[in-house]
Amino acid sequence: MRKLILLGTGNVAYHLYHAISSIENWEVVQVYNHREESLSDFNTTTQTTTNLNELVDANLIICCLKDDLIESYFEKLVDKDCLIVHTSGAKTLQKNRKKSGVFYPLQSFSKYKTMDYSKIPFCIEATRADDLKKLENLALSISESVYKINSKKRLQMHLAAVFVNNFSNYMFKLGQDLCIENHIDEAILMPLIEETFEKLKDIKAEEAQTGPARRQDQETINQHLKLLKKDSKKEIYKIISQHIKNDYGEKL
Amino acid sequence: MRKLILLGTGNVAYHLYHAISSIENWEVVQVYNHREESLSDFNTTTQTTTNLNELVDANLIICCLKDDLIESYFEKLVDKDCLIVHTSGAKTLQKNRKKSGVFYPLQSFSKYKTMDYSKIPFCIEATRADDLKKLENLALSISESVYKINSKKRLQMHLAAVFVNNFSNYMFKLGQDLCIENHIDEAILMPLIEETFEKLKDIKAEEAQTGPARRQDQETINQHLKLLKKDSKKEIYKIISQHIKNDYGEKL
Repeated sequence: MRKLILLGTGNVAYHLYHAISSIENWEVVQVYNHREESLSDFNTTTQTTTNLNELVDANLIICCLKDDLIESYFEKLVDKDCLIVHTSGAKTLQKNRKKSGVFYPLQSFSKYKTMDYSKIPFCIEATRADDLKKLENLALSISESVYKINSKKRLQMHLAAVFVNNFSNYMFKLGQDLCIENHIDEAILMPLIEETFEKLKDIKAEEAQTGPARRQDQETINQHLKLLKKDSKKEIYKIISQHIKNDYGEKL
Repeated sequence: MRKLILLGTGNVAYHLYHAISSIENWEVVQVYNHREESLSDFNTTTQTTTNLNELVDANLIICCLKDDLIESYFEKLVDKDCLIVHTSGAKTLQKNRKKSGVFYPLQSFSKYKTMDYSKIPFCIEATRADDLKKLENLALSISESVYKINSKKRLQMHLAAVFVNNFSNYMFKLGQDLCIENHIDEAILMPLIEETFEKLKDIKAEEAQTGPARRQDQETINQHLKLLKKDSKKEIYKIISQHIKNDYGEKL
Protein backbone atom coordinates (compact mmCIF):
# COMPACT_ATOMS: atom_id res chain seq x y z
CA MET A 1 0.00 0.00 0.00
CA ARG A 2 1.43 3.36 -1.04
CA LYS A 3 1.04 6.20 1.45
CA LEU A 4 -0.11 9.70 0.66
CA ILE A 5 -0.43 12.95 2.61
CA LEU A 6 -2.74 15.78 1.62
CA LEU A 7 -1.84 19.34 2.55
CA GLY A 8 -4.94 21.51 2.62
CA THR A 9 -8.63 20.92 3.27
CA GLY A 10 -10.30 22.94 0.50
CA ASN A 11 -12.38 21.75 -2.44
CA VAL A 12 -9.52 20.05 -4.27
CA ALA A 13 -8.24 18.29 -1.14
CA TYR A 14 -11.76 17.20 -0.23
CA HIS A 15 -12.41 15.60 -3.62
CA LEU A 16 -8.93 14.10 -4.00
CA TYR A 17 -9.36 12.54 -0.59
CA HIS A 18 -12.60 10.90 -1.67
CA ALA A 19 -11.27 9.91 -5.08
CA ILE A 20 -8.12 8.33 -3.64
CA SER A 21 -9.91 6.66 -0.74
CA SER A 22 -11.82 4.52 -3.19
CA ILE A 23 -8.85 3.17 -5.16
CA GLU A 24 -6.61 0.24 -4.39
CA ASN A 25 -2.88 0.50 -3.67
CA TRP A 26 -3.05 4.02 -2.26
CA GLU A 27 -4.02 5.21 1.19
CA VAL A 28 -4.39 8.77 2.47
CA VAL A 29 -2.46 8.39 5.73
CA GLN A 30 -2.65 12.01 6.88
CA VAL A 31 -4.29 15.36 6.15
CA TYR A 32 -2.64 18.61 7.20
CA ASN A 33 -4.10 22.05 7.74
CA HIS A 34 -2.74 24.84 9.91
CA ARG A 35 -6.19 25.31 11.44
CA GLU A 36 -7.64 22.52 13.57
CA GLU A 37 -11.27 23.39 12.71
CA SER A 38 -10.64 22.91 8.98
CA LEU A 39 -9.76 19.26 9.59
CA SER A 40 -13.26 18.24 10.71
CA ASP A 41 -14.13 16.69 7.32
CA PHE A 42 -11.22 14.28 7.70
CA ASN A 43 -10.38 13.64 11.35
CA THR A 44 -12.86 10.84 11.89
CA THR A 45 -11.54 8.77 8.98
CA THR A 46 -7.81 9.50 8.82
CA GLN A 47 -4.98 10.96 10.86
CA THR A 48 -4.80 14.75 10.82
CA THR A 49 -2.31 17.36 12.01
CA THR A 50 -1.85 21.11 12.25
CA ASN A 51 1.92 20.78 12.62
CA LEU A 52 4.14 20.29 9.58
CA ASN A 53 6.84 18.78 11.80
CA GLU A 54 4.47 15.92 12.62
CA LEU A 55 4.03 14.67 9.05
CA VAL A 56 4.31 10.88 8.93
CA ASP A 57 6.32 8.92 6.39
CA ALA A 58 4.71 8.81 2.96
CA ASN A 59 5.43 8.06 -0.71
CA LEU A 60 3.73 11.19 -1.92
CA ILE A 61 2.66 14.56 -0.56
CA ILE A 62 -0.03 16.39 -2.53
CA CYS A 63 -0.08 20.09 -1.75
CA CYS A 64 -3.63 21.36 -2.39
CA LEU A 65 -3.00 24.78 -0.86
CA LYS A 66 -3.72 28.16 -2.41
CA ASP A 67 -1.38 29.28 -5.19
CA ASP A 68 0.34 31.94 -3.10
CA LEU A 69 1.25 29.40 -0.41
CA ILE A 70 2.77 26.75 -2.66
CA GLU A 71 6.32 28.10 -2.86
CA SER A 72 6.63 28.65 0.87
CA TYR A 73 5.30 25.15 1.67
CA PHE A 74 7.64 23.51 -0.82
CA GLU A 75 10.40 25.47 0.94
CA LYS A 76 9.28 24.28 4.38
CA LEU A 77 9.28 20.68 3.16
CA VAL A 78 12.65 20.85 1.44
CA ASP A 79 14.11 18.17 3.75
CA LYS A 80 11.37 15.65 2.96
CA ASP A 81 12.67 12.86 0.80
CA CYS A 82 9.46 11.85 -0.98
CA LEU A 83 7.82 13.14 -4.14
CA ILE A 84 5.88 16.36 -3.52
CA VAL A 85 3.39 17.70 -6.05
CA HIS A 86 1.02 20.64 -6.16
CA THR A 87 -2.43 20.83 -7.76
CA SER A 88 -2.31 24.32 -9.24
CA GLY A 89 -2.94 25.15 -12.88
CA ALA A 90 -1.08 28.44 -12.69
CA LYS A 91 2.05 27.60 -10.68
CA THR A 92 5.09 26.15 -12.42
CA LEU A 93 6.80 22.90 -11.47
CA GLN A 94 8.68 23.73 -8.25
CA LYS A 95 12.41 23.35 -8.85
CA ASN A 96 13.72 23.50 -5.27
CA ARG A 97 13.79 19.69 -4.96
CA LYS A 98 14.65 16.61 -6.99
CA LYS A 99 11.35 14.83 -6.59
CA SER A 100 8.84 17.46 -7.64
CA GLY A 101 5.66 17.29 -9.67
CA VAL A 102 2.26 18.66 -10.58
CA PHE A 103 -1.09 16.89 -10.29
CA TYR A 104 -3.63 19.37 -11.69
CA PRO A 105 -7.27 18.32 -12.04
CA LEU A 106 -8.88 20.51 -14.74
CA GLN A 107 -12.22 20.85 -13.03
CA SER A 108 -14.23 23.25 -10.88
CA PHE A 109 -14.92 21.59 -7.56
CA SER A 110 -17.71 22.31 -5.12
CA LYS A 111 -17.38 20.81 -1.67
CA TYR A 112 -19.78 18.00 -0.70
CA LYS A 113 -21.07 17.69 -4.28
CA THR A 114 -20.88 14.15 -5.64
CA MET A 115 -18.72 13.97 -8.76
CA ASP A 116 -17.77 11.38 -11.34
CA TYR A 117 -14.00 11.38 -10.83
CA SER A 118 -13.44 9.07 -13.82
CA LYS A 119 -14.13 11.97 -16.23
CA ILE A 120 -11.85 14.58 -14.64
CA PRO A 121 -8.82 15.39 -16.85
CA PHE A 122 -5.59 15.26 -14.83
CA CYS A 123 -2.64 17.31 -16.14
CA ILE A 124 0.54 15.81 -14.74
CA GLU A 125 4.20 16.84 -14.77
CA ALA A 126 7.30 15.73 -12.86
CA THR A 127 11.00 16.50 -12.74
CA ARG A 128 11.94 12.81 -13.01
CA ALA A 129 10.57 10.27 -15.48
CA ASP A 130 9.89 7.61 -12.83
CA ASP A 131 7.91 10.10 -10.76
CA LEU A 132 5.90 11.04 -13.84
CA LYS A 133 5.09 7.36 -14.28
CA LYS A 134 3.96 7.14 -10.64
CA LEU A 135 1.71 10.17 -11.06
CA GLU A 136 0.33 8.73 -14.26
CA ASN A 137 -0.54 5.47 -12.52
CA LEU A 138 -2.22 7.31 -9.66
CA ALA A 139 -4.17 9.58 -12.05
CA LEU A 140 -5.23 6.59 -14.16
CA SER A 141 -6.53 4.87 -11.03
CA ILE A 142 -8.88 7.82 -10.56
CA SER A 143 -9.65 8.94 -14.12
CA GLU A 144 -9.60 7.72 -17.69
CA SER A 145 -8.36 11.13 -18.85
CA VAL A 146 -4.69 11.88 -18.09
CA TYR A 147 -2.50 14.40 -19.93
CA LYS A 148 1.28 14.83 -19.61
CA ILE A 149 1.59 18.58 -19.98
CA ASN A 150 4.45 20.94 -19.14
CA SER A 151 4.06 24.08 -17.02
CA LYS A 152 3.75 26.40 -20.00
CA LYS A 153 0.94 24.40 -21.60
CA ARG A 154 -0.71 23.87 -18.23
CA LEU A 155 -0.91 27.62 -17.72
CA GLN A 156 -2.55 27.88 -21.14
CA MET A 157 -5.08 25.24 -20.04
CA HIS A 158 -5.67 27.16 -16.83
CA LEU A 159 -6.34 30.24 -18.96
CA ALA A 160 -8.66 28.22 -21.22
CA ALA A 161 -10.50 27.11 -18.06
CA VAL A 162 -11.03 30.75 -17.10
CA PHE A 163 -12.73 31.36 -20.45
CA VAL A 164 -14.92 28.24 -20.51
CA ASN A 165 -15.81 28.24 -16.83
CA ASN A 166 -15.45 31.67 -15.17
CA PHE A 167 -16.23 33.88 -18.16
CA SER A 168 -19.06 31.76 -19.58
CA ASN A 169 -20.58 31.67 -16.08
CA TYR A 170 -20.33 35.46 -15.97
CA MET A 171 -22.28 35.63 -19.25
CA PHE A 172 -24.95 33.44 -17.62
CA LYS A 173 -24.92 35.83 -14.66
CA LEU A 174 -25.41 38.90 -16.87
CA GLY A 175 -28.34 37.19 -18.63
CA GLN A 176 -29.91 36.20 -15.32
CA ASP A 177 -29.40 39.78 -14.07
CA LEU A 178 -31.44 41.06 -17.03
CA CYS A 179 -34.29 38.74 -16.03
CA ILE A 180 -34.16 39.90 -12.43
CA GLU A 181 -34.08 43.58 -13.49
CA ASN A 182 -37.17 42.94 -15.63
CA HIS A 183 -39.01 40.97 -12.94
CA ILE A 184 -38.99 37.77 -15.00
CA ASP A 185 -38.16 34.42 -13.43
CA GLU A 186 -34.60 33.64 -14.56
CA ALA A 187 -35.65 30.00 -15.02
CA ILE A 188 -36.89 31.18 -18.43
CA LEU A 189 -33.25 31.04 -19.62
CA MET A 190 -32.45 27.50 -18.49
CA PRO A 191 -33.62 25.60 -21.63
CA LEU A 192 -31.51 27.93 -23.77
CA ILE A 193 -28.49 27.51 -21.50
CA GLU A 194 -29.00 23.74 -21.64
CA GLU A 195 -29.16 23.80 -25.46
CA THR A 196 -26.03 25.98 -25.63
CA PHE A 197 -24.22 23.25 -23.75
CA GLU A 198 -25.90 20.34 -25.58
CA LYS A 199 -24.67 21.61 -28.95
CA LEU A 200 -21.06 21.42 -27.81
CA LYS A 201 -21.41 17.66 -27.49
CA ASP A 202 -21.83 17.48 -31.26
CA ILE A 203 -19.95 20.41 -32.75
CA LYS A 204 -17.14 22.81 -31.86
CA ALA A 205 -18.08 26.15 -30.32
CA GLU A 206 -16.70 27.91 -33.38
CA GLU A 207 -19.31 26.17 -35.51
CA ALA A 208 -22.09 26.56 -32.94
CA GLN A 209 -21.74 30.35 -32.81
CA THR A 210 -24.97 32.19 -33.69
CA GLY A 211 -26.49 35.59 -32.92
CA PRO A 212 -26.53 39.18 -34.19
CA ALA A 213 -22.73 39.61 -34.13
CA ARG A 214 -22.13 36.28 -35.88
CA ARG A 215 -24.43 37.33 -38.74
CA GLN A 216 -23.13 40.94 -38.74
CA ASP A 217 -26.63 42.18 -37.86
CA GLN A 218 -25.70 45.72 -36.84
CA GLU A 219 -29.35 46.81 -36.51
CA THR A 220 -30.03 44.35 -33.70
CA ILE A 221 -26.65 45.10 -32.11
CA ASN A 222 -27.51 48.82 -32.09
CA GLN A 223 -30.94 48.08 -30.66
CA HIS A 224 -29.33 46.06 -27.82
CA LEU A 225 -26.69 48.72 -27.17
CA LYS A 226 -29.41 51.36 -26.92
CA LEU A 227 -31.14 49.21 -24.35
CA LEU A 228 -27.89 48.98 -22.36
CA LYS A 229 -27.31 52.74 -22.53
CA LYS A 230 -26.47 53.38 -18.92
CA ASP A 231 -25.37 49.89 -18.06
CA SER A 232 -21.92 48.49 -17.35
CA LYS A 233 -23.02 45.50 -19.48
CA LYS A 234 -22.80 47.79 -22.51
CA GLU A 235 -19.00 47.71 -22.67
CA ILE A 236 -18.96 43.91 -22.47
CA TYR A 237 -21.67 43.59 -25.12
CA LYS A 238 -19.84 45.97 -27.45
CA ILE A 239 -16.43 44.37 -27.17
CA ILE A 240 -17.51 40.75 -27.41
CA SER A 241 -19.75 41.58 -30.39
CA GLN A 242 -16.86 43.36 -32.08
CA HIS A 243 -14.59 40.35 -31.59
CA ILE A 244 -17.22 37.93 -32.90
CA LYS A 245 -17.74 40.20 -35.91
CA ASN A 246 -14.00 40.31 -36.55
CA ASP A 247 -13.60 36.54 -36.16
CA TYR A 248 -16.46 35.64 -38.47
CA GLY A 249 -16.52 38.66 -40.78
CA GLU A 250 -14.37 37.26 -43.51
CA LYS A 251 -16.17 33.96 -43.55
CA LEU A 252 -19.51 35.44 -44.59
CA MET B 1 -59.65 21.92 -36.33
CA ARG B 2 -57.95 25.32 -36.38
CA LYS B 3 -55.86 26.14 -39.43
CA LEU B 4 -52.42 27.66 -39.42
CA ILE B 5 -50.01 28.92 -42.08
CA LEU B 6 -46.26 29.19 -41.59
CA LEU B 7 -44.31 31.85 -43.46
CA GLY B 8 -40.67 30.84 -43.74
CA THR B 9 -38.77 27.56 -43.79
CA GLY B 10 -35.83 28.25 -41.46
CA ASN B 11 -35.01 26.69 -38.11
CA VAL B 12 -37.94 28.23 -36.24
CA ALA B 13 -40.48 27.32 -38.96
CA TYR B 14 -39.08 23.78 -39.15
CA HIS B 15 -39.46 23.16 -35.42
CA LEU B 16 -42.81 24.95 -35.06
CA TYR B 17 -44.10 22.80 -37.91
CA HIS B 18 -43.07 19.63 -36.08
CA ALA B 19 -44.26 20.87 -32.70
CA ILE B 20 -47.67 21.91 -34.05
CA SER B 21 -48.10 18.79 -36.21
CA SER B 22 -48.15 16.66 -33.10
CA ILE B 23 -50.87 18.55 -31.21
CA GLU B 24 -54.62 18.22 -31.46
CA ASN B 25 -56.96 20.99 -32.63
CA TRP B 26 -54.39 22.68 -34.85
CA GLU B 27 -53.28 21.82 -38.37
CA VAL B 28 -50.53 23.43 -40.45
CA VAL B 29 -52.46 23.83 -43.71
CA GLN B 30 -49.75 25.63 -45.70
CA VAL B 31 -46.09 26.65 -45.66
CA TYR B 32 -44.88 29.63 -47.68
CA ASN B 33 -41.41 30.53 -48.89
CA HIS B 34 -40.48 32.73 -51.84
CA ARG B 35 -38.05 30.06 -53.04
CA GLU B 36 -39.42 26.72 -54.21
CA GLU B 37 -36.32 24.75 -53.21
CA SER B 38 -36.64 25.85 -49.57
CA LEU B 39 -40.01 24.10 -49.33
CA SER B 40 -38.61 20.59 -49.76
CA ASP B 41 -38.80 19.82 -46.01
CA PHE B 42 -42.55 20.43 -46.10
CA ASN B 43 -44.03 19.75 -49.55
CA THR B 44 -44.55 16.02 -49.07
CA THR B 45 -46.62 16.47 -45.90
CA THR B 46 -48.48 19.75 -46.36
CA GLN B 47 -49.49 22.26 -48.99
CA THR B 48 -46.78 24.73 -49.95
CA THR B 49 -46.59 27.91 -52.02
CA THR B 50 -44.12 30.51 -53.23
CA ASN B 51 -46.88 33.01 -53.92
CA LEU B 52 -48.35 35.15 -51.13
CA ASN B 53 -51.51 35.67 -53.22
CA GLU B 54 -52.19 31.95 -53.00
CA LEU B 55 -52.42 31.74 -49.22
CA VAL B 56 -55.40 29.62 -48.18
CA ASP B 57 -57.88 30.56 -45.46
CA ALA B 58 -56.51 30.13 -41.95
CA ASN B 59 -57.12 31.14 -38.34
CA LEU B 60 -53.51 32.08 -37.75
CA ILE B 61 -50.45 33.02 -39.79
CA ILE B 62 -47.09 32.63 -38.04
CA CYS B 63 -44.38 34.69 -39.73
CA CYS B 64 -41.04 32.97 -39.04
CA LEU B 65 -39.08 35.17 -41.43
CA LYS B 66 -35.91 37.10 -40.72
CA ASP B 67 -36.26 40.23 -38.59
CA ASP B 68 -35.65 42.63 -41.45
CA LEU B 69 -38.48 41.08 -43.51
CA ILE B 70 -41.18 41.14 -40.85
CA GLU B 71 -42.47 44.68 -41.38
CA SER B 72 -42.72 44.34 -45.14
CA TYR B 73 -44.55 40.99 -44.90
CA PHE B 74 -47.00 42.35 -42.34
CA GLU B 75 -47.57 45.18 -44.83
CA LYS B 76 -48.12 42.77 -47.70
CA LEU B 77 -50.66 40.83 -45.64
CA VAL B 78 -52.56 43.87 -44.40
CA ASP B 79 -55.76 42.76 -46.10
CA LYS B 80 -55.77 39.34 -44.43
CA ASP B 81 -58.45 39.12 -41.80
CA CYS B 82 -56.88 36.55 -39.47
CA LEU B 83 -54.46 36.89 -36.57
CA ILE B 84 -50.87 37.28 -37.76
CA VAL B 85 -47.93 36.86 -35.38
CA HIS B 86 -44.17 36.94 -35.75
CA THR B 87 -41.59 34.87 -33.87
CA SER B 88 -38.88 37.47 -33.34
CA GLY B 89 -37.40 38.41 -29.99
CA ALA B 90 -36.19 41.78 -31.22
CA LYS B 91 -39.13 43.12 -33.28
CA THR B 92 -41.98 44.94 -31.58
CA LEU B 93 -45.63 43.97 -31.87
CA GLN B 94 -46.64 45.10 -35.38
CA LYS B 95 -49.27 47.79 -35.10
CA ASN B 96 -50.48 47.98 -38.73
CA ARG B 97 -53.40 45.62 -38.08
CA LYS B 98 -56.01 44.85 -35.45
CA LYS B 99 -55.23 41.18 -35.04
CA SER B 100 -51.50 41.19 -34.41
CA GLY B 101 -49.30 39.21 -32.07
CA VAL B 102 -45.94 37.74 -31.16
CA PHE B 103 -45.10 34.07 -30.60
CA TYR B 104 -41.42 34.06 -29.60
CA PRO B 105 -39.78 30.77 -28.59
CA LEU B 106 -36.77 31.59 -26.38
CA GLN B 107 -34.51 28.86 -27.71
CA SER B 108 -31.67 28.33 -30.17
CA PHE B 109 -32.88 25.97 -32.88
CA SER B 110 -30.78 23.70 -35.08
CA LYS B 111 -32.54 22.18 -38.05
CA TYR B 112 -33.19 18.40 -38.02
CA LYS B 113 -32.15 18.15 -34.35
CA THR B 114 -34.77 16.45 -32.19
CA MET B 115 -35.93 18.71 -29.37
CA ASP B 116 -38.17 18.47 -26.35
CA TYR B 117 -40.70 21.15 -27.25
CA SER B 118 -42.43 20.89 -23.87
CA LYS B 119 -39.54 22.76 -22.21
CA ILE B 120 -39.28 25.69 -24.63
CA PRO B 121 -40.39 28.99 -23.07
CA PHE B 122 -42.83 30.84 -25.33
CA CYS B 123 -43.08 34.61 -24.92
CA ILE B 124 -46.44 35.73 -26.24
CA GLU B 125 -48.07 39.09 -26.88
CA ALA B 126 -51.16 40.27 -28.79
CA THR B 127 -53.03 43.48 -29.51
CA ARG B 128 -56.34 41.95 -28.43
CA ALA B 129 -57.06 40.02 -25.25
CA ASP B 130 -58.92 37.20 -27.05
CA ASP B 131 -55.99 36.73 -29.44
CA LEU B 132 -53.61 36.57 -26.50
CA LYS B 133 -55.78 33.82 -25.04
CA LYS B 134 -55.65 31.92 -28.38
CA LEU B 135 -51.87 32.21 -28.49
CA GLU B 136 -51.65 31.10 -24.88
CA ASN B 137 -53.72 28.00 -25.64
CA LEU B 138 -51.59 27.17 -28.66
CA ALA B 139 -48.34 27.71 -26.73
CA LEU B 140 -49.61 25.61 -23.82
CA SER B 141 -50.43 22.80 -26.26
CA ILE B 142 -46.74 22.75 -27.18
CA SER B 143 -44.98 23.72 -23.97
CA GLU B 144 -45.50 23.90 -20.23
CA SER B 145 -43.62 27.21 -20.12
CA VAL B 146 -45.55 30.23 -21.45
CA TYR B 147 -44.90 33.87 -20.55
CA LYS B 148 -47.08 36.89 -21.40
CA ILE B 149 -44.43 39.52 -22.03
CA ASN B 150 -44.65 42.91 -23.74
CA SER B 151 -42.31 44.03 -26.53
CA LYS B 152 -40.01 45.97 -24.23
CA LYS B 153 -39.48 43.04 -21.87
CA ARG B 154 -39.18 40.63 -24.80
CA LEU B 155 -36.32 42.66 -26.20
CA GLN B 156 -34.65 42.44 -22.80
CA MET B 157 -35.09 38.66 -22.91
CA HIS B 158 -33.64 38.60 -26.41
CA LEU B 159 -30.66 40.51 -25.07
CA ALA B 160 -30.38 38.10 -22.13
CA ALA B 161 -30.37 35.27 -24.67
CA VAL B 162 -27.42 36.88 -26.46
CA PHE B 163 -25.46 36.81 -23.20
CA VAL B 164 -26.34 33.28 -22.10
CA ASN B 165 -26.18 31.69 -25.55
CA ASN B 166 -24.06 33.66 -28.03
CA PHE B 167 -21.55 35.18 -25.63
CA SER B 168 -21.12 32.11 -23.42
CA ASN B 169 -20.60 30.05 -26.58
CA TYR B 170 -17.95 32.54 -27.66
CA MET B 171 -16.15 32.03 -24.33
CA PHE B 172 -16.22 28.28 -25.03
CA LYS B 173 -14.79 29.02 -28.48
CA LEU B 174 -11.93 31.10 -27.06
CA GLY B 175 -11.09 28.32 -24.60
CA GLN B 176 -11.17 25.68 -27.34
CA ASP B 177 -8.98 27.96 -29.50
CA LEU B 178 -6.35 27.97 -26.74
CA CYS B 179 -6.33 24.17 -26.77
CA ILE B 180 -5.95 24.06 -30.54
CA GLU B 181 -3.15 26.65 -30.45
CA ASN B 182 -1.34 24.51 -27.90
CA HIS B 183 -1.93 21.22 -29.74
CA ILE B 184 -4.09 19.81 -26.97
CA ASP B 185 -7.32 17.96 -27.74
CA GLU B 186 -10.10 20.43 -26.88
CA ALA B 187 -12.07 17.50 -25.40
CA ILE B 188 -10.00 18.17 -22.27
CA LEU B 189 -12.35 21.08 -21.52
CA MET B 190 -15.65 19.22 -21.80
CA PRO B 191 -15.95 17.96 -18.20
CA LEU B 192 -15.34 21.52 -16.97
CA ILE B 193 -17.90 22.93 -19.41
CA GLU B 194 -20.35 20.28 -18.26
CA GLU B 195 -19.78 21.13 -14.60
CA THR B 196 -20.18 24.87 -15.35
CA PHE B 197 -23.63 24.06 -16.67
CA GLU B 198 -24.49 21.47 -13.99
CA LYS B 199 -23.94 24.01 -11.21
CA LEU B 200 -26.58 26.30 -12.68
CA LYS B 201 -29.20 23.66 -12.02
CA ASP B 202 -28.62 24.17 -8.28
CA ILE B 203 -27.48 27.74 -7.82
CA LYS B 204 -27.62 31.11 -9.59
CA ALA B 205 -24.71 32.07 -11.81
CA GLU B 206 -23.94 34.96 -9.46
CA GLU B 207 -23.29 32.49 -6.66
CA ALA B 208 -21.47 29.99 -8.92
CA GLN B 209 -18.88 32.57 -10.03
CA THR B 210 -15.29 31.51 -9.28
CA GLY B 211 -11.85 32.28 -10.71
CA PRO B 212 -9.02 34.78 -10.37
CA ALA B 213 -11.18 37.86 -10.98
CA ARG B 214 -13.85 36.71 -8.52
CA ARG B 215 -11.22 36.34 -5.78
CA GLN B 216 -9.40 39.54 -6.83
CA ASP B 217 -6.26 37.48 -7.56
CA GLN B 218 -4.35 40.11 -9.54
CA GLU B 219 -1.20 37.98 -9.69
CA THR B 220 -2.90 35.23 -11.72
CA ILE B 221 -4.74 37.82 -13.82
CA ASN B 222 -1.40 39.46 -14.68
CA GLN B 223 0.12 36.08 -15.47
CA HIS B 224 -2.75 35.33 -17.87
CA LEU B 225 -2.58 38.78 -19.47
CA LYS B 226 1.17 38.32 -20.04
CA LEU B 227 0.39 35.04 -21.78
CA LEU B 228 -2.13 36.83 -24.03
CA LYS B 229 0.31 39.64 -24.86
CA LYS B 230 -0.16 39.73 -28.60
CA ASP B 231 -3.59 38.21 -28.69
CA SER B 232 -6.99 39.74 -29.41
CA LYS B 233 -8.27 37.61 -26.49
CA LYS B 234 -6.35 39.94 -24.18
CA GLU B 235 -8.87 42.76 -24.44
CA ILE B 236 -11.77 40.41 -23.68
CA TYR B 237 -9.93 38.85 -20.75
CA LYS B 238 -9.08 42.25 -19.32
CA ILE B 239 -12.55 43.75 -19.58
CA ILE B 240 -14.51 40.77 -18.32
CA SER B 241 -12.08 40.36 -15.41
CA GLN B 242 -12.45 44.04 -14.56
CA HIS B 243 -16.24 43.76 -14.53
CA ILE B 244 -16.18 40.64 -12.37
CA LYS B 245 -13.79 42.39 -9.98
CA ASN B 246 -16.10 45.42 -9.82
CA ASP B 247 -19.21 43.30 -9.30
CA TYR B 248 -17.75 41.18 -6.51
CA GLY B 249 -15.18 43.57 -5.05
CA GLU B 250 -17.32 45.03 -2.35
CA LYS B 251 -18.61 41.67 -1.25
CA LEU B 252 -15.19 40.36 -0.23
